[in-house]
Amino acid sequence: MRYELYYWPEIPGRGEFIRLALEAGGADYIDVGNSTEPGYGIEAVTHWIDGTMTDYPPLAPPFLKAGKEVISHVAGILLYLAPRLKLINDDKVYQYWAHSLQLTITDFVAEAHDVHHPLGPELYFEDQQDVAVRRARNFIDNRLPKFFHYFECIIDKNPDSSMYLVGKRLSYVDLSLFHMVQGLRYAFPNAMAALESEIPKVIALHDHVLDMPLISEYLASERRLPFSEKGLFRHYPILDQ
Amino acid sequence: MRYELYYWPEIPGRGEFIRLALEAGGADYIDVGNSTEPGYGIEAVTHWIDGTMTDYPPLAPPFLKAGKEVISHVAGILLYLAPRLKLINDDKVYQYWAHSLQLTITDFVAEAHDVHHPLGPELYFEDQQDVAVRRARNFIDNRLPKFFHYFECIIDKNPDSSMYLVGKRLSYVDLSLFHMVQGLRYAFPNAMAALESEIPKVIALHDHVLDMPLISEYLASERRLPFSEKGLFRHYPILDQ
Repeated sequence: MRYELYYWPEIPGRGEFIRLALEAGGADYIDVGNSTEPGYGIEAVTHWIDGTMTDYPPLAPPFLKAGKEVISHVAGILLYLAPRLKLINDDKVYQYWAHSLQLTITDFVAEAHDVHHPLGPELYFEDQQDVAVRRARNFIDNRLPKFFHYFECIIDKNPDSSMYLVGKRLSYVDLSLFHMVQGLRYAFPNAMAALESEIPKVIALHDHVLDMPLISEYLASERRLPFSEKGLFRHYPILDQ
Repeated sequence: MRYELYYWPEIPGRGEFIRLALEAGGADYIDVGNSTEPGYGIEAVTHWIDGTMTDYPPLAPPFLKAGKEVISHVAGILLYLAPRLKLINDDKVYQYWAHSLQLTITDFVAEAHDVHHPLGPELYFEDQQDVAVRRARNFIDNRLPKFFHYFECIIDKNPDSSMYLVGKRLSYVDLSLFHMVQGLRYAFPNAMAALESEIPKVIALHDHVLDMPLISEYLASERRLPFSEKGLFRHYPILDQ
């Protein structure tokens, strides 16, 4: 099975949570938006969203095409992919628990995005910078520690492991948490530097993922797209005071 | 099986999406936060969140206890419940599609909430009212029509039905869309009055759900909690110009 990941080109964005799972699972896949192969590229992404290709159009990328199936939203795609890529225990109880955690990461991602777009995605950052500064203060003081302390607690309480979030082995949720650390270090280096000593298990998990052969090879490849101020995690120094 | 729904008392909130499924599915359940039975009530909710009851604490309500399983987040709970309550086709393809739509509703809910709390949930509305007015303008002009037009399109394209979102019969996603109409009519009566003629299939689905015997009986009961300015959908006239 060759999976097709549909996402905007040139940014890691929400697509990165899917790429990390595909890479760590050793999957055969094509990153459609970034492909120069005939029939792929950004038009292939937009034609699925505008409904010309399907009776079941997603509202937005990312979505995954797996044979005839089309599945959208990060948490939905990972729910589908993880058992197939051996990135979650076969036991359904673990799968529901992992999905619950991934949905918490969904909320965390939305808040990390909304820091720079508190009035909505239709307006440029420059047109809402005053509000973003106020929202960033609350994000750094309250929301950022709340989410990371929660995941620290989840690793700490995991009866099956002292390293991972779910079960005895690496799961896709670990990869997503790894990416939250990566993205938030990029966007808020000062805030993260001040917080990291409080979340040693989260950081140890991050470092462990970083050292995984398939992941370190991916991160060094051209398939890994750089963070930028066009993406989900944006570094605006004025928001990271 | 007696399901236990854990959610904050006195408000419909995010718990309402679960209540509607439990009611439409004819399930035996207890609304723990609102119960006066011994061992229930708000303390039972908070003890699960603070981790004293479990190694697998949710970050926040709602969560569902089903025997030994604890499942959190609206979309995760509905994914689990719907096949058991016959609120989705048994075919996995339909279940993934319904879950994708429910995750789009998750995003819609988050935006409907953030209109009145654009700087974050830690601050009172009164302390962010100026920003809320700016965000509400964007929500009403762009986001509200975007989401509802999308769901109108999904009903329109459904090859199996001219009434429902997924498949031939009512599914849990229909119930959630019904509640979006109810909540947004409460919060933004002017904006909804202006929009509704553009989304006739969404409104027809809403009216159909309203007339279902189990739902109309529920809505007339004391189990149905009223909307208020403590909840997810809030009516502040200044935001609905």
